[in-house]
Amino acid sequence: MQSMHKNIRVLAFDIFGTVVDWHGSIVKEMQRIAPEVDGDRFTLAWRSGYVPAMQKVMSGILPWMKIDALHRLILDDILPQFGLDHLDESQRQDLNKIWHKLDPWPESVAALSQLKSHYTICTLSNGNVSLLTNMAKHGGLPWDCILSAEIFKKYKPDPATYLGVAELFDVAPGQVMLVAAHQSDLAAARASGLQTAFIERPMEYGAKQSNDISPVAENTFHATDLLHLADQLLDH
Amino acid sequence: MQSMHKNIRVLAFDIFGTVVDWHGSIVKEMQRIAPEVDGDRFTLAWRSGYVPAMQKVMSGILPWMKIDALHRLILDDILPQFGLDHLDESQRQDLNKIWHKLDPWPESVAALSQLKSHYTICTLSNGNVSLLTNMAKHGGLPWDCILSAEIFKKYKPDPATYLGVAELFDVAPGQVMLVAAHQSDLAAARASGLQTAFIERPMEYGAKQSNDISPVAENTFHATDLLHLADQLLDH
Repeated sequence: MQSMHKNIRVLAFDIFGTVVDWHGSIVKEMQRIAPEVDGDRFTLAWRSGYVPAMQKVMSGILPWMKIDALHRLILDDILPQFGLDHLDESQRQDLNKIWHKLDPWPESVAALSQLKSHYTICTLSNGNVSLLTNMAKHGGLPWDCILSAEIFKKYKPDPATYLGVAELFDVAPGQVMLVAAHQSDLAAARASGLQTAFIERPMEYGAKQSNDISPVAENTFHATDLLHLADQLLDH
Repeated sequence: MQSMHKNIRVLAFDIFGTVVDWHGSIVKEMQRIAPEVDGDRFTLAWRSGYVPAMQKVMSGILPWMKIDALHRLILDDILPQFGLDHLDESQRQDLNKIWHKLDPWPESVAALSQLKSHYTICTLSNGNVSLLTNMAKHGGLPWDCILSAEIFKKYKPDPATYLGVAELFDVAPGQVMLVAAHQSDLAAARASGLQTAFIERPMEYGAKQSNDISPVAENTFHATDLLHLADQLLDH
């Protein structure tokens, strides 16, 4: 690993779960606006609609749309199950925007600031550009560049997204490393020739839901959090 | 003007000449690597090939390519005129990369930092994504987001570039303001419904070349530099 990482120029970060705590942020907001609702169950229901909705877009059942629009479709779908169908249009819009204001995991900003001094650091998320930009302003995430599925008009794990990062930065795929808390994302990136770093996020789905954090040998790095990745990359 | 600017959400900045001093930066570099060459004349020759080269792409004579590639075509074209045709491939690549390391005008970073706390600030340049990202790292330009002609596969003044900013940020065209030192860029942005701010850069082409900085009434703002724009926008 020591020799391989000399070659890395660009670190592309998955966002939801890897850099920010979507579960904790949404549970907290639900406690504020609808304390009678089981925030944990509500949040998991909202998130569970995400992959199927993207698959409908990628298979052509739905036209291309921003994640904001997909989040809204899922939200409208689940609100009745939680007795929240009385929320009006403006309240639904506000609630949907919560995905723009997810809080970073505690060490994210410090680790990204360290990594930024040695690498180009960018997002590579299925979240849309405005979502990622607003989130960076909200949490102080110091990206060099915001890249999104919206730029490539393909969602991860489409190879166009991983290869698109290399092409935009004029480097070989092996000079880009995807950093993510999800092995499926990392496996797809490896299939396109990227290097990969797995970040353990045992609490991504909250305390009640277990999340597999076991190492996979194919990853270039395995880290307990982003500061641990920075330690390994920066040879501290 | 006071009432109009309440509506502005996104400031999109032209880069070459508006935020960074391409002429001064390239003259300085030429003094270092080829002191025998007239750096002022060389720099103006290189830059003068820029608009015609983009027009060849937009008219279909050349395929889509990054500005890096256009800069290189022009460089290869002018080197013999300056007695520099002995530069080898690696030297030419290095020289071409100078466009990634242009220095900001003296007040740019301070002004952008002020504006960033109240607006979303992004690039909107014909420069490619890697060029703009490297330039931001080089000069400490604190962009919220890097947008480029490369994202839209159209060069300014194509309306797709101006309208593309509004679409990515989910706002109306009138909630975006283009900030630029070039009236032609601003006129095209206005034709797409954007607000516009003109920045005086009397020295953009160096001390020997005059540059028209007279006000045009159609612009929302006219500013002597970016701090003057910040003063007007932030109601200091």
